[in-house]
Parts: sequence; structure tokens; C-alpha cells
Amino acid sequence: MNDFMYYNPTKIEFGKTKENKIGQYIKESNIKKVLLVTGTGSIKKNGLYEKIISSLNKYNIEYEEIDGVVSNPLLSRVNDGIKIAKEHKIEAVLGVGGGSVADSAKAIAVGAKYEGDVWDFFINKVQITEALPVFTVMTLAATASEMNGNSVVMNDETQQKYSIASVLVNPVVSVINPELMATVSQEYLAYSAVDIIAHSIEVYFTATDHPNFNSRIVESIIKTVIETTEALLENPNDYDARAEFAWVAIQALNGLTPAGTAGGSFPNHMIEHALSAIYNVAHGAGLAVVIPAWMKWHKEQNIKQYTRFAKEIFNENDADKGIELLEAWFAKIGAPVTLQMINIPREGIKALATNANALAGLWGMDEAYSVETIIDILEKA
Amino acid sequence: MNDFMYYNPTKIEFGKTKENKIGQYIKESNIKKVLLVTGTGSIKKNGLYEKIISSLNKYNIEYEEIDGVVSNPLLSRVNDGIKIAKEHKIEAVLGVGGGSVADSAKAIAVGAKYEGDVWDFFINKVQITEALPVFTVMTLAATASEMNGNSVVMNDETQQKYSIASVLVNPVVSVINPELMATVSQEYLAYSAVDIIAHSIEVYFTATDHPNFNSRIVESIIKTVIETTEALLENPNDYDARAEFAWVAIQALNGLTPAGTAGGSFPNHMIEHALSAIYNVAHGAGLAVVIPAWMKWHKEQNIKQYTRFAKEIFNENDADKGIELLEAWFAKIGAPVTLQMINIPREGIKALATNANALAGLWGMDEAYSVETIIDILEKA
Repeated sequence: MNDFMYYNPTKIEFGKTKENKIGQYIKESNIKKVLLVTGTGSIKKNGLYEKIISSLNKYNIEYEEIDGVVSNPLLSRVNDGIKIAKEHKIEAVLGVGGGSVADSAKAIAVGAKYEGDVWDFFINKVQITEALPVFTVMTLAATASEMNGNSVVMNDETQQKYSIASVLVNPVVSVINPELMATVSQEYLAYSAVDIIAHSIEVYFTATDHPNFNSRIVESIIKTVIETTEALLENPNDYDARAEFAWVAIQALNGLTPAGTAGGSFPNHMIEHALSAIYNVAHGAGLAVVIPAWMKWHKEQNIKQYTRFAKEIFNENDADKGIELLEAWFAKIGAPVTLQMINIPREGIKALATNANALAGLWGMDEAYSVETIIDILEKA
Repeated sequence: MNDFMYYNPTKIEFGKTKENKIGQYIKESNIKKVLLVTGTGSIKKNGLYEKIISSLNKYNIEYEEIDGVVSNPLLSRVNDGIKIAKEHKIEAVLGVGGGSVADSAKAIAVGAKYEGDVWDFFINKVQITEALPVFTVMTLAATASEMNGNSVVMNDETQQKYSIASVLVNPVVSVINPELMATVSQEYLAYSAVDIIAHSIEVYFTATDHPNFNSRIVESIIKTVIETTEALLENPNDYDARAEFAWVAIQALNGLTPAGTAGGSFPNHMIEHALSAIYNVAHGAGLAVVIPAWMKWHKEQNIKQYTRFAKEIFNENDADKGIELLEAWFAKIGAPVTLQMINIPREGIKALATNANALAGLWGMDEAYSVETIIDILEKA
């Protein structure tokens, strides 16, 4: 077992109607003025926006607003937010929406305390030493951004989808009301399920030291994702399944699963970020395409864990069968599993591999993932 | 799934030699003077005491000291510590030892900020609203006190073993170096294993709503405890097993396992506290006696979960068989499983039941656990 530091100071307020208390949670941190970050308008249609504003008003919390955050959130919009935050002396950033909104809120929180270009943090030119406090009210469960310090942003000028990580942007409080997630489309539910599984299996398969307890936690998460996704596809109003899905989404990327492991990496995310960056694919859809291909390429490097996976998740004895059944499950829930299904032509592979390989450099994975290797993997998709 | 709040701001510094950095961790919180709380002297023999003092000196952190904290830590010693803390204007409390030391450090941290008798908090006469910051360096893994806000203290005048709980006494930083735990006796390793399993199964069996994910986490903890305990009994120097054991001990009582459940309670702890209070039994030993008896008495109330337990932990199809095999495993690792084995005579049961029932009142369990019911349970032990 490897040495580690575990620290996750985010308070999770989980349950029905808790969004009505967001003003109270913010006030408890002595904050009087927030920047409200939102997406492309669904919260204005379903009444959530009104509830948030009403709660802010109730606790005399002033707010400025920036909306229009899209999936694969754009750096340009983040910069708009930073500008508002600086102009209006904003004290905290409140994201209300899905992972893209939470990630944008975090990037704004970092940029608001920095004189230079916020992209400097994403290319590791500078380290994060301060940030505005972040709060979130989530409408989608997938990225676990609500309980971690990660933010992934798309530079719309350079076509780079890069990330930052700092406990300084762990949300102070995140509100998770599963009822707010009940209107997510079946398509996005499937993408979310794939994303959660992706978060779980990256370190599970790549770590050189992976204690049994960590494997058991990961398997618990995956079994629960499969079970609750199927329940929700059957009945989108199954509150308990929706709630459990939301909670395991958080556990998959809040620091618990890799604690004590060694040598783990995130190659599927690295490759997928290239797909999203160049073709604007939904993150979960891109992952569903990349993961089975990567597993087929990678399995010989850790055949014992792939055999364990097949046994624990699908009650099969053969590593290949485990990969095959995971791919089949992705397809069954409506996620794409080939590049063709997301309209990426074979000729595009070279550029994808080059884009992903640049990220490999930043993530310290360039030795294992040369352009040629990434091409090999994508050829399997 | 029930509504919940999850908040655990303790930073865990896990790994070899991390105790040498305790001065740095304390200094990072801008603290200049601590009360060092220790046990009955083993850390002076094995060199840990010197390392701690050296680290405090290195970072210019002044300290006062109180030692002599025993298992089932005494209120009288806590009061001694509070007196020193008040006299010397202590800014934080540093516990170096096992669960009793950590629990005493927390009680001192609460008492140091209170004019009245600290026992007021234990009998729910007043609520905790402030406390000194707490830090710990652990030499035993069992109670998870290193990552929760619980403190159990024994009132040596009234023979009451009662508890407090507040996130205000969650340690700011806890150092877990599994190497510091390598000298724990086989006897105490067994008691610790029982304690961890006890923390895991209380809510698992008693909750009226227990999502599958929670059950899976609990089962992951129990499987890992069984596996690593057996490895350590075979080879006490198995670092990886020692480390994994220490980490699952924490997971068993840091708020993760009950999150989202409803209706759970801690009857085994309630009854065991009476055993410790009257007969000064080691907590884990008392639990090993109480748990199988309680399970036999309780199983009909949640037969489905007992059947699941038998299947998941022991690959058996029958609830009774699961209880029998857990009891047999306790015995195998050297834990006592009858009152007789811990020298408690049958005539003592009435007084135990009365003591436990008083605690049931405090814990809101007096309807389910009358004196007669507790007698019934203890008769099975």
C-alpha cells in the first residue's frame, strides 16, 4: 500500500428540497455576494432558477450572473465569468447545473484571484495558491465535480481540453437533490453511467499496486451503477435508484478509490479529451467508444485484474469475456461503442492521437502513450 | 434512500515516517502551543515520543503534557487535561496513541472551551459549540477516532461509559503510519478486528432503509478486515496488510457507511459500554461477546440482511450459519465469545442490563431495548 494524503473538506447536503437552503449554506460561510453560473436555460424552464434566487434573496446574498455554459465547457465563457467576478468584487462562485457548470465555476474561482490568463493553470505554467470559495447545486450526476477539486475546460481557440486540480476549489457545500436529476434524458443517463464507470476503472486497471479493499470499492461502485442505471431506464421516477446513482457517482472520483494505490493513470480520459476537443463529442459518449478499445489493447499488461473484473462484475472466468460484456452493456444502455457511431472518420485518428499525446505529456504519460500507441488503440474503436 | 449531510474535513496523512511531520502539520494551522496527550508509556519505550517532541521543537511549537490515558479512558484524567489546557492557554490538543488517547484529546478539546463540567456534554445537558483543534498520531487502528468526531469516555465515579459527537472535534490532521502499529499484540489485533466489524454491522443490520451500495461497502470492509487480520496473525510484519487494516478501520466509522440509510442504531456498542463500565473489559473483547448473542436475538427482525451477510461474507445460504461462522471466526482469532470467558458471572447480567438501558435512553433506543430485552440478549452470551 502506497503512502497517501486524503483530504476532502466538501460538505454534501443530500436530499429532497435541499436546494432551497443554498442561501443559508452560503451565508454560513459569511459570504454576501456570489457569481451565479448556469447552463443553457433548462433551470429557468423547470423552476430551479427561481428557487435558487429566492433562497439567495432570503439570506440577503447579492448575485451577478453568467449563463450559457455548455457541455465541454468553453474557456471563453470562463473568461467572461472571471471578468464579471473581478468587476463586481464577487466573494464566491455558485454553480447550478451539471459537471460543466461546476467545472466552469471552479475555473472562474481560480481565475478571479489571478492577474494573468487562467489558462496558465491548465498548462501547468503556474500552480493554484488561492481561489474564491465554490458552491454547487447539481442537476446531473456523473463527473463528481461536486466533491472534488477537478475542473476540465475546453480551450476553444486551441482545441485543447485540459484540466486543473486543487482542493482549494473543492466545493464548500454541494447540494445533491436527486429529484433535480429526474428529467435527464436516457441518452445522458447512459453517458453518465459510462463516465462513472470510467472514473472507477482507470486506476483499477492501471495501478501497479492496487489493494484488495480499493478493488472491492470500485467493484461496489460499478455493480451499483449497472443496477441503478437499469432501474432508471425502466422507471425514470425511481427516486431511490436516482439517489444511489448520484451518490456512487461522487464516490467514484472523490479521492476514495485511488487512496493507497500506486502507479495509476487516466489514459481513457486523456484519449477522450481529444475526441471532445476536436469533434465536440459528449464526454460519456467518447468514453464509451474509447474504453472497450483501450481495454482490449491494455489487458495483457494486467491480465489478473481483468480476470478479476470479469468474475466480480459479470460472473465470468475469462478476461476477454469481461471486456466484451462491458462493451455490450454500453451498447445496451444506448452508448456508442465505435468511432463510426459518433461520426469520426478513420482519417481523423492521426489528429486525435496527436492531440491526446500532447495531453499525455502534461499528465506524465507520454512514455506509455506515444502517438503510434494511441493510433493503435483508436484503430480498435 | 434517506436524506443526509456528509462532512468529514479531517486530513489523513497516511504512510511511513509521517509522524516526523506532525510539527509541520500543526504549524500549518498557525498553532504555537499544544497539549500532548499520551497513554501509559509504550511510546517512550519505542522512540515515538522522541520523534514527536523533535518535530514539535523543529517547528517551534510549545507543549504541555498529560500522560497515563488508559483503555476505557477515564473522565478524571480528561479533567486533569482540561485543567492544564486552561492554565497554559493551550491552542490545540495533540493525541499520540490509540483510540482512548484520541478520545481523551477530543474531550479535553471540548472541555477546555467550557466553563462548566465537561460531563455535561456526555449526558446531553449542553451541546458542543466550540472546541480546540485536535490532531492525532495513531498507534492502533480500531476506533476510527482519527477520522470522526466521536469520543467515548468512562466516568470513573458513576460507572457510565458515555460519548459525544461533533465535527468540531474531528481531527484537523491525523497521522496514520502503519509501522507504528506493528507492535500491537495479537490479542489487541483481534479486539480491533472485532471493533471494526462491530462498527460496520450495527447500521447494516438495524437500518430500516439500507441501500445496496452501503451494504456493498460494509461487506468490502468486513472481507478486508478478515483477510488482513489473518495475514497479520500469520506475519505481524506484513506492512501492506497492516496498512489496509488501518485504512478500513477508518472507513468503518467515518460517516461513509451510514450515509443515506435510515433507522440504524448501535445496540451492540450500547450493551458493550455497560460491560466496559462495570467490568473494565477491553472494548473489542466485550463486543466479541455481545455481537453473536445480539445477532441471534435480532436476526428475525431483518432476516433478509442476515441471509445476505451469510452469503456475501461466508458464501453460505443460511442466516444462522453466517452468525455461527462469525462467532467461530472471533474465537479463532482469539477473541472471547461468552460472558464466562471474560469472567462476568450470570448474576451480573441484571446490573449490566440496567446500565445499558440507561444509555439506551440517551441514545433514543429505550423503546426497543428495555432492561428485560437486554437481559434476554445477554443470557445468550
